[in-house]
Amino acid sequence: MKITVNQNELQSAINMTLKGVSNKNTIEILKGILFETYEGKLMLTSNNLEIGVQTVIDADIQREGKVVIDAKIISDIVRKLPSSDVCLDVDETHIVKISSTSLEFNIKGFSGEDFPIPVSIEENYYKEISSDIFKEMVRKTSFAVSLDETKPLLMGELIEFKNNSINMVAIDGFRLAIKYIKDDNFVTDSKIIVPGKTLVDISRMIPPSVDKIKLGFDEKHASFIIGETILTTRLLEGEFINYSQIIPKEFSTKLKIHTKDFLYALDRACLVAKNNLIKIDISDDNLKISSKNDEIGNLEENIFIELEGSNLEIAFNAKYFMDALKTIDEEYISLELNTNVSPCILKPYDDDSYTYLLLPVRI
Amino acid sequence: MKITVNQNELQSAINMTLKGVSNKNTIEILKGILFETYEGKLMLTSNNLEIGVQTVIDADIQREGKVVIDAKIISDIVRKLPSSDVCLDVDETHIVKISSTSLEFNIKGFSGEDFPIPVSIEENYYKEISSDIFKEMVRKTSFAVSLDETKPLLMGELIEFKNNSINMVAIDGFRLAIKYIKDDNFVTDSKIIVPGKTLVDISRMIPPSVDKIKLGFDEKHASFIIGETILTTRLLEGEFINYSQIIPKEFSTKLKIHTKDFLYALDRACLVAKNNLIKIDISDDNLKISSKNDEIGNLEENIFIELEGSNLEIAFNAKYFMDALKTIDEEYISLELNTNVSPCILKPYDDDSYTYLLLPVRI
Repeated sequence: MKITVNQNELQSAINMTLKGVSNKNTIEILKGILFETYEGKLMLTSNNLEIGVQTVIDADIQREGKVVIDAKIISDIVRKLPSSDVCLDVDETHIVKISSTSLEFNIKGFSGEDFPIPVSIEENYYKEISSDIFKEMVRKTSFAVSLDETKPLLMGELIEFKNNSINMVAIDGFRLAIKYIKDDNFVTDSKIIVPGKTLVDISRMIPPSVDKIKLGFDEKHASFIIGETILTTRLLEGEFINYSQIIPKEFSTKLKIHTKDFLYALDRACLVAKNNLIKIDISDDNLKISSKNDEIGNLEENIFIELEGSNLEIAFNAKYFMDALKTIDEEYISLELNTNVSPCILKPYDDDSYTYLLLPVRI
Repeated sequence: MKITVNQNELQSAINMTLKGVSNKNTIEILKGILFETYEGKLMLTSNNLEIGVQTVIDADIQREGKVVIDAKIISDIVRKLPSSDVCLDVDETHIVKISSTSLEFNIKGFSGEDFPIPVSIEENYYKEISSDIFKEMVRKTSFAVSLDETKPLLMGELIEFKNNSINMVAIDGFRLAIKYIKDDNFVTDSKIIVPGKTLVDISRMIPPSVDKIKLGFDEKHASFIIGETILTTRLLEGEFINYSQIIPKEFSTKLKIHTKDFLYALDRACLVAKNNLIKIDISDDNLKISSKNDEIGNLEENIFIELEGSNLEIAFNAKYFMDALKTIDEEYISLELNTNVSPCILKPYDDDSYTYLLLPVRI
């Protein structure tokens, strides 16, 4: 293989493929990126057997071929090259000569023959979705994905397509986050469970220049097309919790509260809270937050609220509230509660497209 | 003590005193900051027995007194308070009530009686120095301070006042950095050795609004006045290396080289260098940098130079070159060398106010 490419484009392409590079040592070749001439362009491929990434950039091809280069090494080198044309020239022993203006690297590569090409979904199964909406759905839910490896299914997010809408759902056993959007592209009923970490990775990979991504899936895989890049992930298999059963429909206490005032007060309360445990005392037009730690001291703070229904005393892990509050841009939220042992619902005020359910802590 | 202060000013004052707070657990009170009413203001004091910091802010004093509060706790709390007035009210059991608009913290404090007040230098011993010049001297030398605790004196920087000038000198056994400035304020001959880390701390503490600092010292201490803050540090005692003996006066090879080209080439060379060892081959108008690592590969890069004197092959630890090059803003540097076993001198081209000496590595 002998090609000339632009340093900047090569660097961006490498950055995209890094998400599919294995960090583990077990299979040496998976720590590399496959560079391959493809239809007059350069294709880069990574595949850690969970996630595979393929991307294509323009190249001047002098000799076709392929090679695998350690991802960390090629990434470090390309990032530090002068921003001009870069020539990659691979000999039959897989030594890669990387040359630019006045310099020449010679780097050990590997044969590209054995590199496992990721499966990807066929072209006509894809539907478009707005990048901003996708990012927003991930941002508002992904923090509620479980990190507990003994419950692998909860480490994924459920994406449900039904009734011309998409729901993205994450549950970790203590809280539940659902973001709902109207979308006429997905008419058929179906659902998939995508690893939560992968959704966050995809969300971060979308450059500002790409305003729509495409999503396609079958029983075992989902592929996301981001500009010239395809990321394919293995799906999680199993039956996701029937989350709609868990959500209470009626509430005896409803209140409207200023989002940032509530967030900042909880943040302060954590400074003197043991295990982030805070007490909330809802009484008429006032919500009192209190926390204490015998070794440090205590805090009491009052926030004005608009209350409908009964007064209530209840306790929570404040961090779980804060995770959701940080993703809410609306000025006010509503809290809906019943008793101090039943789930609480947090939503942006007058907005049903986001629902966050949180279990209280027994005092 | 009962006082009202502005949250912003209190936060800045706490940040200034943090540099003098002990990180070690041995003496509990030194992990705290002393808050004390002082001439109608609030004085904050920290002292870890190496460095002491005192700073003063405006306060509305309702009751005089003092208290020590754990630095981490008070710093976290004040940072997260609303930006309005803060009231600190200390009772006879040293509980500090910290209140703002709609909140009240009660925090455990300690008696202020036993807090060790740092010594500081008398008013009339101070001389002024420009903040920018001071920061520049520290930036160009401090990276060459030794980190080797078995050579405590080399963990400090020598500051020499002589012939209406100031020299700041750091040596770690492999390299030597000297920054020299003309300064008519310091006429008397004297020298002090200040811990290198403290000089960096002071340099970072100087806010953009303070364009001159004051420096005063005696045999055992130096004090730096930064606006309303005095930082006092213990000096290192002993005889600093007679550094001027080490610096060669004549050179058989002198060259002019582009600062950034050289820096970036060395950075690339390190990607495939073992232990950052790089070879330099000076030949007529060309400097060739080469490095290799049997497991990864090798690099060769050529840079245009202007050479006076003999060709030379020599090897260096590239990181040691890069540390100095990163602090040089001039477009060109000069390198002055003799043999491949004698020290090399790096300077900004046509500028004698900075000298960096580096020992080569034997090939």
